Amino acid sequence: MKLLEDKIRAEGKVLPGDVLRIDNFLNHQIDVRLLEQMGREFYELFKDNNPNKILTIEASGIAVAIEAAKYFGYIPVVFAKKAASSNMSNEIYVEQEHSYTKNVEFNVQVAKEYLNENDRILILDDFLANGEAMNALIKICHQAKATVVGCGAVVSKSYQKGEQRIRDMGIDLKVLASVKCMSDDGQIEFN
Amino acid sequence: MKLLEDKIRAEGKVLPGDVLRIDNFLNHQIDVRLLEQMGREFYELFKDNNPNKILTIEASGIAVAIEAAKYFGYIPVVFAKKAASSNMSNEIYVEQEHSYTKNVEFNVQVAKEYLNENDRILILDDFLANGEAMNALIKICHQAKATVVGCGAVVSKSYQKGEQRIRDMGIDLKVLASVKCMSDDGQIEFN
Repeated sequence: MKLLEDKIRAEGKVLPGDVLRIDNFLNHQIDVRLLEQMGREFYELFKDNNPNKILTIEASGIAVAIEAAKYFGYIPVVFAKKAASSNMSNEIYVEQEHSYTKNVEFNVQVAKEYLNENDRILILDDFLANGEAMNALIKICHQAKATVVGCGAVVSKSYQKGEQRIRDMGIDLKVLASVKCMSDDGQIEFN
Repeated sequence: MKLLEDKIRAEGKVLPGDVLRIDNFLNHQIDVRLLEQMGREFYELFKDNNPNKILTIEASGIAVAIEAAKYFGYIPVVFAKKAASSNMSNEIYVEQEHSYTKNVEFNVQVAKEYLNENDRILILDDFLANGEAMNALIKICHQAKATVVGCGAVVSKSYQKGEQRIRDMGIDLKVLASVKCMSDDGQIEFN
């Protein structure tokens, strides 16, 4: 998505430790018009996959998922919650995620009542790096016997293992801006 | 907002400990059409207050803020982050919030670059009970010398101290569904 790539080049910040920050328009401040355009792009990419529900994870993923949901005819959005520890309830699907940026484990949780075997789930998130969060969401869908009809990320770093990991599962993955490489002086190259 | 009150009566769950859960359409699964209607309602309530930016707090607040922002002409949304501890950076405004539901203290943080003295801020959030989160957001605006032109909450419990606390500051507070009382058998009465 050229508009997004241009925005990342102009306003994204490359920080030490291979970190790409897009706080200026998605992860802290939100450019609502661009968000709407990203939602529309996800619709164009996945409209033939016929999802009946979008699954995402707090916090920034919520914004992206809502915008996409409208184009799909106002289908429901379910957002997974991140918790330091699992409450081990029978009413919740739980999967563990390792956060490489924060170097902690946490639990990804979705109440069972919001996912079931008849669901055709489109998973959307803001970032895809090692694919930990997305993998946890996929496993939760498997627990619920729901069908994952596709996965979408706003930004991915294609040189990390996330993209390949998701595609190796046979899942239709689409990325709006796939970063090929970044340099410490702030140069960003896209695939 | 009658539509919202009806939805809360039909799908809200009153849990022990005076907890109102609206996970079915806002705090875990999101009814995107209702969300849009709430955004429009906030616009109707605050259109004469001329905000140039909306400030909210992760996670569910983001959904509400985005929808409202569109009606105000796609003004930017800034969402405060919750952190277990402050990183004490010179680049961040920090205020402490006590969560009564979780009985923990955490820090509410906004990067300084996203708030300044020329801003006319509309603060929006999902819940208003004791007003801890909203008060932290107001204090962050004061730190930034920004003007708070109004505060809006989707749901408040008017018998707790939040509503009065915000109004006592002279701030224009609007609530879409103000709960007067709840009973353990699930009955909910609105103001």
